[in-house]
Amino acid sequence: MRLTNYTDYALRVLIYLTAKEQDQLSTISEIAEAYDISKNHLMKVIHELGKLGIITTIRGRGGGIKLALPPEDINIGALVRETEDDFKLVPCFEEGNHSCAISPICGLKHALNKALIAYLQVLDQYTLADIVVQPDRYRALLGMNQSHL
Amino acid sequence: MRLTNYTDYALRVLIYLTAKEQDQLSTISEIAEAYDISKNHLMKVIHELGKLGIITTIRGRGGGIKLALPPEDINIGALVRETEDDFKLVPCFEEGNHSCAISPICGLKHALNKALIAYLQVLDQYTLADIVVQPDRYRALLGMNQSHL
Repeated sequence: MRLTNYTDYALRVLIYLTAKEQDQLSTISEIAEAYDISKNHLMKVIHELGKLGIITTIRGRGGGIKLALPPEDINIGALVRETEDDFKLVPCFEEGNHSCAISPICGLKHALNKALIAYLQVLDQYTLADIVVQPDRYRALLGMNQSHL
Repeated sequence: MRLTNYTDYALRVLIYLTAKEQDQLSTISEIAEAYDISKNHLMKVIHELGKLGIITTIRGRGGGIKLALPPEDINIGALVRETEDDFKLVPCFEEGNHSCAISPICGLKHALNKALIAYLQVLDQYTLADIVVQPDRYRALLGMNQSHL
């Protein structure tokens, strides 16, 4: 059982932006470098987070991205619901997939759906502010303070 | 978020064996055909279910497999814990994977772990008997009665 890379990257970007000193902008390049992940993958994620209204992009020289909302207002469950847009726990959850013979009556779907709801309800209890409780420790690990040295 | 094919196949095999008329044996070939899935993939799953003591193999001519326990005693949560042996919700859950810079302090791991526990606790409430409540309907969809025509 695995979340998509897409969700993983979205969460990491938001953690990065939460850890950043207030009002400072971040660039895709610095986030890609801090996590050692591909800039191309990040660009798609950041575009989507912008469309969702979770981050803001300031264009032009000296531009960059930042959170569009306080970390307290960015809910992890809500975010995962957006980024894991399908939740295909098993192949028969895919719309139009009738490849499993017992799909019309299978009692497993109900059980897996209930389990998924319980999973998301736990994540609903967390905001980004609950995840990043000591921003300075994140800043140190993400190499954010190096430019001030 | 997706269960592995391995778990999906294990659950389908067990549903098949639960639906079967009491004491009748099933063959890998007939299960593969009923679900239209590869016999090779099924063999590995069935071997594993045997090792776990959930199914019994009767060897020789006229042999086959059947449940080793009543369906009431085969718990879905316990099974998924066995078949999803890793539960790597995100890459940093992998032992020895230190590729994410914030891994040592990341508050997300705790939240995802709690969510996973809630997910499995729901599945713990189900046995195979709860999933296959009307075996005759499963038999019809799985083409099990055709040989009696």
